[in-house]
Amino acid sequence: MRLLTKARDLRRRKARERDHLFVAEGVRAVGALMASPIVPVGILVSEPDAGDTRIVPVITAARALGVPVEVVSARDFASATETESPQGVLAIAPTPRAALPDDPASNARVVILDAVQDPGNVGTIVRAAAAFGLAATITTPGTVDVWNGKVVRSAMGALFVHPAIPCAWDVLAAWLTRHTFACWIADAEGAPLSQQLDLLTGPGRVALIVGNEGAGSSAEARAVAAHTVRVEMTSDVESLNVAVATSILLHAIRSTRAQ
Amino acid sequence: MRLLTKARDLRRRKARERDHLFVAEGVRAVGALMASPIVPVGILVSEPDAGDTRIVPVITAARALGVPVEVVSARDFASATETESPQGVLAIAPTPRAALPDDPASNARVVILDAVQDPGNVGTIVRAAAAFGLAATITTPGTVDVWNGKVVRSAMGALFVHPAIPCAWDVLAAWLTRHTFACWIADAEGAPLSQQLDLLTGPGRVALIVGNEGAGSSAEARAVAAHTVRVEMTSDVESLNVAVATSILLHAIRSTRAQ
Repeated sequence: MRLLTKARDLRRRKARERDHLFVAEGVRAVGALMASPIVPVGILVSEPDAGDTRIVPVITAARALGVPVEVVSARDFASATETESPQGVLAIAPTPRAALPDDPASNARVVILDAVQDPGNVGTIVRAAAAFGLAATITTPGTVDVWNGKVVRSAMGALFVHPAIPCAWDVLAAWLTRHTFACWIADAEGAPLSQQLDLLTGPGRVALIVGNEGAGSSAEARAVAAHTVRVEMTSDVESLNVAVATSILLHAIRSTRAQ
Repeated sequence: MRLLTKARDLRRRKARERDHLFVAEGVRAVGALMASPIVPVGILVSEPDAGDTRIVPVITAARALGVPVEVVSARDFASATETESPQGVLAIAPTPRAALPDDPASNARVVILDAVQDPGNVGTIVRAAAAFGLAATITTPGTVDVWNGKVVRSAMGALFVHPAIPCAWDVLAAWLTRHTFACWIADAEGAPLSQQLDLLTGPGRVALIVGNEGAGSSAEARAVAAHTVRVEMTSDVESLNVAVATSILLHAIRSTRAQ
């Protein structure tokens, strides 16, 4: 199948899951991908942009790796992209296969996205999770596919270096229990973060669970979590942005690598 | 002028600045506006949505306040909005006149947006500034207009309760000096946040300056700031989202009202 047809096809989650492939769009994302351990299966370039000084090095690097490069018309390129102003380059690449580790570090931190829907929020959270040295971002059923184009863009390359692991709740609950994770739910009614820092930042494994933007945390999440925590704020606004609140909590529980 | 024509006109910054008016779009934003001290000059409703159970109470509340309500065709309504899937209601309202306070509290905290461009980031930062009880968000020339529709949407009502103050650097620098603000620049090369908490969270006034996404902080910012601070992170990713990094710093310097 031509790369163009494949790129169009991969806009659908079913196609991504069937082929274990995803699309990274734009100069910066494709550059980050080429610098990561993931080897693309192909690069698609829009003909008018093929001489662009930012795109030429990408094409050169791809060819050096033996990655096929397909140049198509601007119109065909636009038909494969999801952005309003495409930058003229995209890569098709295999989704990294990530599984729950058998031997998480004794002070491992993970974030669990429990039916979080907004792709921009999910990408921003993955970026923060990578920045703060978390061992993984785990997604439960109902969370947006992390290989959705908008998540990939918002994550700004973080998905290429940080494990994003889809997992069913029964398997996840058993893994959390087996490895004695202290499980916390981020909740507007939870205990104030500043009063929980000893528990959250001490030794031992910590999992932070972030629920759906509207419905909050699931019954499965509440079944595994012994604690809740909230970011303290004034009553002037109703809430913080989900990615902002989560990032503040991830910063608090960050790994020693981010200190 | 009809409300429809006015709403269309207010998509331009020049029109907003000339008329001291802005547009808030959507059920939630209009609801937050009606609950704030700001009284709209008019409400525009899309005819097919005029019976919507979420919009009817907005219309009733507007009429009770003596605010004119104009019902227009779906097509006309769409011509006045900036969103792809408009919710059928928008409000036109006066921009609150905010000026640098003559007597900031002895422990006042402010955030200064120094040519920050992305409207979504600016709105999210204003929302966090309100949540953490900052005295004001100050914008210098080159920062996106905070009454831009996308900033208003991202701020989720925070702009209606939190002062956003545009200010030239010379006036701002004099004000910061006169009131002995300790000025910090958020900078990826700055001192680690965890080692600066005593200074950042102690008594006295604190200003946090956030620079342009690409170019960083301006010469004017560097002239007033004695310190720089960064959010510690791993080297796995290049950077954090600007709104996330800023929110983590605002959380650290939050007012006693948010503790």
